[in-house]
Amino acid sequence: MRWQRPKESIGELKSRWRIFEATKPGAETVVTSPRFNSQWRHTNGTLNRMSYLSIDLDKPGASSGHLIVREGSDCGELLLPVFSLNRGEGPRLLITGGCHGNELEGPIVARRVASWLPEAQTCGRVIILPELNPLALQAWSRNTPSDGLNMNRVFPGCAEGSVTERIADAVSRLLLPMADTVFDLHSFGPMWDFPPSIITHPIADAGSMARTVRMAEAFKLPMTLVWEHQDTPGMFDTWAHSQGKLFICAEFGGGTVGSEALTIYETGMRNALIALGLVEGTAESPTFRQKKSSQTLETRACDELKSPQRGIFEPRCSVLDDVQQGDLIGVLHSRDSLPDGSSDIRAPIASIVCAIRSGGYVDFNEEVALLARQHTLSVG
Amino acid sequence: MRWQRPKESIGELKSRWRIFEATKPGAETVVTSPRFNSQWRHTNGTLNRMSYLSIDLDKPGASSGHLIVREGSDCGELLLPVFSLNRGEGPRLLITGGCHGNELEGPIVARRVASWLPEAQTCGRVIILPELNPLALQAWSRNTPSDGLNMNRVFPGCAEGSVTERIADAVSRLLLPMADTVFDLHSFGPMWDFPPSIITHPIADAGSMARTVRMAEAFKLPMTLVWEHQDTPGMFDTWAHSQGKLFICAEFGGGTVGSEALTIYETGMRNALIALGLVEGTAESPTFRQKKSSQTLETRACDELKSPQRGIFEPRCSVLDDVQQGDLIGVLHSRDSLPDGSSDIRAPIASIVCAIRSGGYVDFNEEVALLARQHTLSVG
Repeated sequence: MRWQRPKESIGELKSRWRIFEATKPGAETVVTSPRFNSQWRHTNGTLNRMSYLSIDLDKPGASSGHLIVREGSDCGELLLPVFSLNRGEGPRLLITGGCHGNELEGPIVARRVASWLPEAQTCGRVIILPELNPLALQAWSRNTPSDGLNMNRVFPGCAEGSVTERIADAVSRLLLPMADTVFDLHSFGPMWDFPPSIITHPIADAGSMARTVRMAEAFKLPMTLVWEHQDTPGMFDTWAHSQGKLFICAEFGGGTVGSEALTIYETGMRNALIALGLVEGTAESPTFRQKKSSQTLETRACDELKSPQRGIFEPRCSVLDDVQQGDLIGVLHSRDSLPDGSSDIRAPIASIVCAIRSGGYVDFNEEVALLARQHTLSVG
Repeated sequence: MRWQRPKESIGELKSRWRIFEATKPGAETVVTSPRFNSQWRHTNGTLNRMSYLSIDLDKPGASSGHLIVREGSDCGELLLPVFSLNRGEGPRLLITGGCHGNELEGPIVARRVASWLPEAQTCGRVIILPELNPLALQAWSRNTPSDGLNMNRVFPGCAEGSVTERIADAVSRLLLPMADTVFDLHSFGPMWDFPPSIITHPIADAGSMARTVRMAEAFKLPMTLVWEHQDTPGMFDTWAHSQGKLFICAEFGGGTVGSEALTIYETGMRNALIALGLVEGTAESPTFRQKKSSQTLETRACDELKSPQRGIFEPRCSVLDDVQQGDLIGVLHSRDSLPDGSSDIRAPIASIVCAIRSGGYVDFNEEVALLARQHTLSVG
């Protein structure tokens, strides 16, 4: 849908379109029309429809429709399927998946949850947007092919920007304000082995950090990981924190997206919905590689192991292995000679392997493994 | 290395370079110089060095060097690491890996075998070329990026062709004639779940088919698969068969290239070397998903299940699952709506799941699963 009307005054527009409200953020005029469930941006005499929702999130019960992301010079309107289940008072949860196009676990698990939620949810509100970035998803690429942007670096987005920024803007303006808690479903992608996990970065506010770790542990996945690294601008979690939200980043494994793994992730989601009080039932610990265990670990920038040269990385351990100082983590084979030219990559200290790269070609100084230790931070 | 000499007669060349032999295949003159362990192609007065080996495969014991693939207009000389172990009389085996650049299992397992072979091999000859296609490997792509060619569709290659064809030509001329048996190490790549397997296509000659299946089963991997599909020109196996070789195509699983899986593949290789008589020892059945079982299955074109629409494929079963008629194999979710618009993909008959696609976006009519049944062909 494309509608532009040149050279009309706000007064004329208001009378013509029965517009009841006009706000003025910055230099632009945003016109809100309840009749059309939409906002229009009035710039230089041209009225452009902004991104909008095709459903009313306040309507009781289940609703299905679309988050309609406004067109731009790089592509037309995008219709992102959205599902809402409003059972009145209670927790308000937003579930998003598919921020990165090569992480399919989230979009699939979000759809599974949407299929049984109408029978299970007893109170509160849940909004599900399974695919944040359908363009990257179709290309099986982390970033959006057309503008090359990583969606998790552009929040809160920009209504006038390229398509990745427009999607982030629509989510930030139309969905995030409707929730108190966000579950953003990621995975480690096809190049890594990683256990089903919830990760969080350290949060300055101790109360918020404690609530986040408690919520993360409620998934009962094999690993909860506190990942200390430098702030990266534009992440969804940073923006959500700034808006006072509880933000949970699921990292649903890596490698093949298979049936057994999806069941583990779905179990984690049900456990979390039970913990939030949205769903009744008893939490279950999923079985991962013949074990039913959960542990909370922490990792820092110095726990990243990198390739000592370019070549073929061969993994020699598996995720959640306990390793001692000097144990072999992997081997880096020179591509130029055989059988000489290999370098061993060993554990610098006793630790737990929390991620290991799939065997493959790597450049010099590329990450090949991530180690961790038991979580010792005070979470209040 | 680049050496071109214009406008000289064969007589002049022979006297200058001590060339002892000249053959004339077709319209070109190929000049063989034992002194330089190489051949030179004489075309229109220009002498170009052809691909050659930096080592003498007839030399007893272990040798390491390169298969040097001649330069062309698209890239310079390529040096492919090669390892040779000559213990005199006995079976002559060529092991190749990395035909497709996103199948890293072969290159890693071939290097593992090269590391222990000097202590284990008691007779015969083994030549190992871990990476047939280093350009595709570096790009983590199935085909060669520069010419877009699938190396397993260009055999026996072409000395004057693009780089993929030149590599195939070098292998066909310099390595294949030195072997009676070929193990070509593939995998199903990152988009599929597949058990560690040996596959073969039906071979018209019953004796050759029986020998191939016996050799395949000697790996003792979880699955030996006879895969009936239409002939595809330019495959390495077809060319090797035409040259009277026993050809084994390993398909070492799919998805993440992990430590435990690599150990399974290496065990299979050791079993096969024992069966060939190159190595002493007792074969062991590797453990795959808590089972130590091997089965020989067959699959046909009609056993391929395809997506009924474009959308997100969700796998609902795992490899080697027994399924009954009507059992759910996967779900195809429409990307356009939620939660409606899903299609179930069900087993048309009782069968065994031998491959299932990783969850992800698929087009209409794309393969999502491969079913199989117990092998019943007579193999004499």
